[in-house]
Amino acid sequence: MIPFDDAKLQGLMDKAGIDLLLATTRHNVRYLTGGYVYHFHNRATRMGSSQYLAVVGIPRGRTAETFYLGMSGEAGELNAAPMWIGAQSLDAGTVSSSAAGAAQRAQALGMATGKIGIEMPFLPASAFVALQSALPHATFVDATDLLHELRAIKTPAELAIMRTVSTDVTDAIHATFLSGTDGITTRTLAATAEREMGTRGIAFLWAFTNAGPGYLRAPSETRWERGQLLHLDCGGEQGDYLADLCRMGALGEPSALGRELTAECLSIQDTVRRQLRPGMTYGEVRAATAAALSGSAHAGIGRIVAHGIGMVSHEQPMIGDPAQASRAIAGGHVLSLETEFHHPEVGHVKIEDTLAITPDGNEGLGDAGRELTIVG
Amino acid sequence: MIPFDDAKLQGLMDKAGIDLLLATTRHNVRYLTGGYVYHFHNRATRMGSSQYLAVVGIPRGRTAETFYLGMSGEAGELNAAPMWIGAQSLDAGTVSSSAAGAAQRAQALGMATGKIGIEMPFLPASAFVALQSALPHATFVDATDLLHELRAIKTPAELAIMRTVSTDVTDAIHATFLSGTDGITTRTLAATAEREMGTRGIAFLWAFTNAGPGYLRAPSETRWERGQLLHLDCGGEQGDYLADLCRMGALGEPSALGRELTAECLSIQDTVRRQLRPGMTYGEVRAATAAALSGSAHAGIGRIVAHGIGMVSHEQPMIGDPAQASRAIAGGHVLSLETEFHHPEVGHVKIEDTLAITPDGNEGLGDAGRELTIVG
Repeated sequence: MIPFDDAKLQGLMDKAGIDLLLATTRHNVRYLTGGYVYHFHNRATRMGSSQYLAVVGIPRGRTAETFYLGMSGEAGELNAAPMWIGAQSLDAGTVSSSAAGAAQRAQALGMATGKIGIEMPFLPASAFVALQSALPHATFVDATDLLHELRAIKTPAELAIMRTVSTDVTDAIHATFLSGTDGITTRTLAATAEREMGTRGIAFLWAFTNAGPGYLRAPSETRWERGQLLHLDCGGEQGDYLADLCRMGALGEPSALGRELTAECLSIQDTVRRQLRPGMTYGEVRAATAAALSGSAHAGIGRIVAHGIGMVSHEQPMIGDPAQASRAIAGGHVLSLETEFHHPEVGHVKIEDTLAITPDGNEGLGDAGRELTIVG
Repeated sequence: MIPFDDAKLQGLMDKAGIDLLLATTRHNVRYLTGGYVYHFHNRATRMGSSQYLAVVGIPRGRTAETFYLGMSGEAGELNAAPMWIGAQSLDAGTVSSSAAGAAQRAQALGMATGKIGIEMPFLPASAFVALQSALPHATFVDATDLLHELRAIKTPAELAIMRTVSTDVTDAIHATFLSGTDGITTRTLAATAEREMGTRGIAFLWAFTNAGPGYLRAPSETRWERGQLLHLDCGGEQGDYLADLCRMGALGEPSALGRELTAECLSIQDTVRRQLRPGMTYGEVRAATAAALSGSAHAGIGRIVAHGIGMVSHEQPMIGDPAQASRAIAGGHVLSLETEFHHPEVGHVKIEDTLAITPDGNEGLGDAGRELTIVG
């Protein structure tokens, strides 16, 4: 069973004139195989004088001839849980052997003079040089955005993973707030967020930690003092699906202004959330976010952004791209929506939600702890 | 303060004729900056239609003119904890902007027609194409092995990190053994190992999980049954320093043969460990490992390997490379030493240790739990 929308992929390849698609990033290999990545190199690819590199190759109009190139060490795993791709060569898996294997397959498929789509900002230079040298009459084009298009509409199974990982991240953020004590450093808080994600079995990616006033968001020796707000803007992932959420905490009672700015973030987010539904154009989404912010008394120090999120942050729907303003959001799109204020006395106040577009509106993923968490 | 052995680097660049070194992998950027990597993109670089890419550029003989290219978002962090590199441009940080920035710096340094060392199996293809196009008269060569040489001798500070992360990994392995119950799957055990590393604040990389008999090492639906041996061969990292260790557990009393093979692994490892000291050539290390294995009654089903480990697995000292057989190991080298047996009734028995070469011998890092752990 082909695990992705093959008709959509064929249409995208037709339109781009791509004869052979070679996917090599971890997230796209996982997407195209239906969830498989060699567990040994899932988190670290470097090895000896090179790195691990798997390839999924899909010839246009001949999806049944899709091939997978990996390492001999993967055989046991692939026998125990077979993937849909029948043509597997497990005598590759390093940069040079995978490039050589992909070139060989391209020749065998009669595509040595065709247009080959690769992930240009990710494919290792030495693999690119080897492909060019083995296929001197091929044309190479970047297929990064094509793969974004392919992945744009999330299936219920994908949404289930995103729901879980978003919930785990907001739970980890909440637990981190609760660990707060007078004068704790943001470095310690970030380490706690990392452990709280690890305990929940998801991969920690980052923790922005603003203990205001002051705008330093990187974990540091900055201390969270009584009466101050803290934002935790954290990323985590599971199976390459990202969660990216921001919540607000206060150590004891914050200033009235701190409360007001936090409530204002929530109110602006809620205003936009009430409107997001299938059929709105990207341009209309931008207009709705701008209008919600401009209604705030603090609009002058505010910023609001909506962007697609899934296996990549800032993927489709590319709300911010003026060239795509007439495209419409649809059920299965997932948006990250972030509202923030920079105030010299209060600090950096921010709420970020994840919103999956549903048939008649949207669903918040990881909505726990949106209200200000008061600690101590 | 230059955080690496600059005289050694200059010697390596002289020998290779490299005029400008451009490091772009996370581990080498961290090494050359003295520990710094932008925290936001430490664990995930993909973003929009490209990825994050930082550059450290070192001109030969002019280390004071070393430059760093990153993103505007890094400014706060770099102000709070300055690094040694004065020439920072934080208007780059994506593949295209960093490639353009590096080309510009090369021109400004008068090195546009020189030999430029890059990390060919890692540098993104589109960065390579941009560099070639902007510097058409430059020669590009791979500097991966040069950077391995530079990093080969670990400082006390590096050894301290490796000691900690190795101890955390063996502690996580031990805790995972103790979680064993009749019929638990190796998938559950691997997830436990991941959480046990997360709880300790290190990054989980992989868990090979062989519940014998049978040789499937990937986490799967295979069950650990009473009387069976289990090996946990796990990787973790902290600050890009790797730990890679294997320990043996048994659910209840194993067979006499299972006990014997485990004891034999330990005995072979110990035989080699008693001999490892500075001045032994790589060839002598290989001979010592082969001799230790050949003394075993089970040598026919055994395998022994020694390889360098640090920021990369299979880095210097490259014990297995016949061309380097006359080179000598030295204090500050770190070796991974692994002995294993494949037996059709018992399964895959394996012990892997990490050994830091000291002035008069070697020190095991993460030596906890080397003896068979009996559970239940």
